Amino acid sequence: MMNQKMKPAIVMQTDFSKDISTCTMEGVCMMVDPELRTFDSTHDIPNFSTYTASSSLAFVVDYWPEGTVFVSVVDPGVGTDRRGCVAKLKNGSYVVTPDNGSLTHMLRHPGIEEVREIDETVNRLPGSEGVNIFHGRDVFAYTAARLASGVIDFEGVGKAYPVEEIVRHTIVEPKVTGNVITGMIDAIDYHFGLVSSNIPMEVMKECGAEYGDVFQVTIRNREQTVYQGKVPYVTSFGAVEIGEPLLMNSETKTIEIAVNSKNMTDSYHIECGPDWTITLELV
Amino acid sequence: MMNQKMKPAIVMQTDFSKDISTCTMEGVCMMVDPELRTFDSTHDIPNFSTYTASSSLAFVVDYWPEGTVFVSVVDPGVGTDRRGCVAKLKNGSYVVTPDNGSLTHMLRHPGIEEVREIDETVNRLPGSEGVNIFHGRDVFAYTAARLASGVIDFEGVGKAYPVEEIVRHTIVEPKVTGNVITGMIDAIDYHFGLVSSNIPMEVMKECGAEYGDVFQVTIRNREQTVYQGKVPYVTSFGAVEIGEPLLMNSETKTIEIAVNSKNMTDSYHIECGPDWTITLELV
Amino acid sequence: MMNQKMKPAIVMQTDFSKDISTCTMEGVCMMVDPELRTFDSTHDIPNFSTYTASSSLAFVVDYWPEGTVFVSVVDPGVGTDRRGCVAKLKNGSYVVTPDNGSLTHMLRHPGIEEVREIDETVNRLPGSEGVNIFHGRDVFAYTAARLASGVIDFEGVGKAYPVEEIVRHTIVEPKVTGNVITGMIDAIDYHFGLVSSNIPMEVMKECGAEYGDVFQVTIRNREQTVYQGKVPYVTSFGAVEIGEPLLMNSETKTIEIAVNSKNMTDSYHIECGPDWTITLELV
Repeated sequence: MMNQKMKPAIVMQTDFSKDISTCTMEGVCMMVDPELRTFDSTHDIPNFSTYTASSSLAFVVDYWPEGTVFVSVVDPGVGTDRRGCVAKLKNGSYVVTPDNGSLTHMLRHPGIEEVREIDETVNRLPGSEGVNIFHGRDVFAYTAARLASGVIDFEGVGKAYPVEEIVRHTIVEPKVTGNVITGMIDAIDYHFGLVSSNIPMEVMKECGAEYGDVFQVTIRNREQTVYQGKVPYVTSFGAVEIGEPLLMNSETKTIEIAVNSKNMTDSYHIECGPDWTITLELV
Repeated sequence: MMNQKMKPAIVMQTDFSKDISTCTMEGVCMMVDPELRTFDSTHDIPNFSTYTASSSLAFVVDYWPEGTVFVSVVDPGVGTDRRGCVAKLKNGSYVVTPDNGSLTHMLRHPGIEEVREIDETVNRLPGSEGVNIFHGRDVFAYTAARLASGVIDFEGVGKAYPVEEIVRHTIVEPKVTGNVITGMIDAIDYHFGLVSSNIPMEVMKECGAEYGDVFQVTIRNREQTVYQGKVPYVTSFGAVEIGEPLLMNSETKTIEIAVNSKNMTDSYHIECGPDWTITLELV
Repeated sequence: MMNQKMKPAIVMQTDFSKDISTCTMEGVCMMVDPELRTFDSTHDIPNFSTYTASSSLAFVVDYWPEGTVFVSVVDPGVGTDRRGCVAKLKNGSYVVTPDNGSLTHMLRHPGIEEVREIDETVNRLPGSEGVNIFHGRDVFAYTAARLASGVIDFEGVGKAYPVEEIVRHTIVEPKVTGNVITGMIDAIDYHFGLVSSNIPMEVMKECGAEYGDVFQVTIRNREQTVYQGKVPYVTSFGAVEIGEPLLMNSETKTIEIAVNSKNMTDSYHIECGPDWTITLELV
């Protein structure tokens, strides 16, 4: 069924909101090659949050075919000397992004095979000289389109540099100590208020926890307790009453906490990143 | 002009907001078949509103080619025993959805020819076992892509069940009694504040009403009057002053009420569904 | 690399917000020809702002291939006798729009070669008679799809009329007097709060200004001063501290003012259009 001649999809995420800016990123792709297919992931990443850029990539990267070219533009350092790069993932896909922490999750899963710095002397939209504030269009979308269309191969991006040099955010590793599981808040679904940890769902089995078991859950912002309560581990929202909290397996196979039909994030002002930790204690 | 080999479009609506979740729904379609074309309808259905899911489908279904595969995911019961299904419409298109009231309007127009329960033993994204909260990606988008690409035919969805068993919302039938027309509020355009009834525009002619005639309009939430006023029936916004109300033929050929250049929905907090009725009395 | 057989892209902008309305505009295109490719520019133009429709077109039109069919629907006069038209641009692309000021910027750049009034007796969605409030779907998207697919050629749109008759907004011309540069606020990026003038970036060089030079900047709404401050002209955000203002070259090669990592538009309630002027005085 797979059409061997189809070019890989380009999938974009930014903190621009969906508007005329992202439209020109797509248009530049069409100018490179009108056969390309462009898709929006999210354009509502919180402004300048390179951590969320990273966790958002992690949410989608397993659900697109091998060879997909992801473009991530959360770029508070645009126009400074931060590197622009393309990472080749171990699953065969690519990420085109400023190297500013946005690749943190990719380093762990699926892993980065090689990274190259974008050579702007060849991979920059002709005519864009003098504009230093929109590399999303002039460098990242343009380079992604050239790569996806086959105008350049991966080597054509620019010089490789050591994967170890990739800028990364701190990750609080998930850990099990007796009947206590700890980890960090890795992602927020602001729309429904779901709070995702980086604790793999397999850990529950390893701890001997079963659906129906109740945990004492504590969420902290650094030292401050932001949420604490007894929460059952269940299969889905419908297993608890409306307004009641639940622990469940998230869409990305980690442990997630939420309140049925209410927005837990709004209620408790929970954010994500290394300052936000979660503890589950089986009671 | 029609390319006979083109696969049907997949058109998605959810209450997720447009973000990384909907992106993975598209990605799953691309993994099934990169030739598929995916489109967004709205992802801003009010959370958990299966009534609005139903009326939103009714708004779009006549304006896409025969054979289109619509995916509707407003799914407060995800992970419970509510059915996941595919309905074959009498106009040749399909709707992939939880069977939870979202098909109410489809039963009336264009009508449902047959409905089948999705057999998750074959139509579930491999590797998604253990995740029970995102059937939008793992079951509905995946099944839609398999159907649109021809991996399965309609029989391949799963077992048929009686159309009569489809879950439906109450509809308040439009009715004419003398010079009084009654119906219900069927849909809200929150952006412009337009209020659509389910009264067909032909009823105006049948009542002898002409453009320029004035109606006493009453909108009620159950017994409570939420809006009352004298409103002319005109062709479009420009026929009345800014800030003045008007009755007109809606985009879906029903009678709609609005205020020129103002948001009537915000002003009067009008919602839709069977608790919301409208009365037009020719004065 | 260019596939000669590919049909031009259709790129849409409206003030509808992205929802079921814009979905039916895409669906109508697919009904005309499923090979067409439709793209969203922005659907968040401030309601009824034909000036912003015009400046938003100017932002994108250079970044899409020759022959692209743009659809712009900000249409407060829908259903009145304002003209619906298609403009053929001097760069080979097209704009399908109500003739209500939305073409103002196109007249200047890239220039309009010819304009034709849409003949609704042939270019109106069959079956849409009696609906007068959604020309975006029934006339503009339908006509754009017919043009892009080759069902009609440009002559098939309807009768040509003089380009001089196109409705236009007032433009305050950029001007240099000694060390003072004046112009107008041409566009707002509400998301990041960037404020774009219509002063070409080349003017800075012509005035002898270099990166690092400081200007006294004044923004006025008619006679009222809305912002005044000393602002350096730099390459990008990172050249100033967070919270500090900067002048830079915009994405469209005009002079733009912003505050690093803060939303200047929200802080000072700045809008765009001929009532909004900006003065830069080299100090």
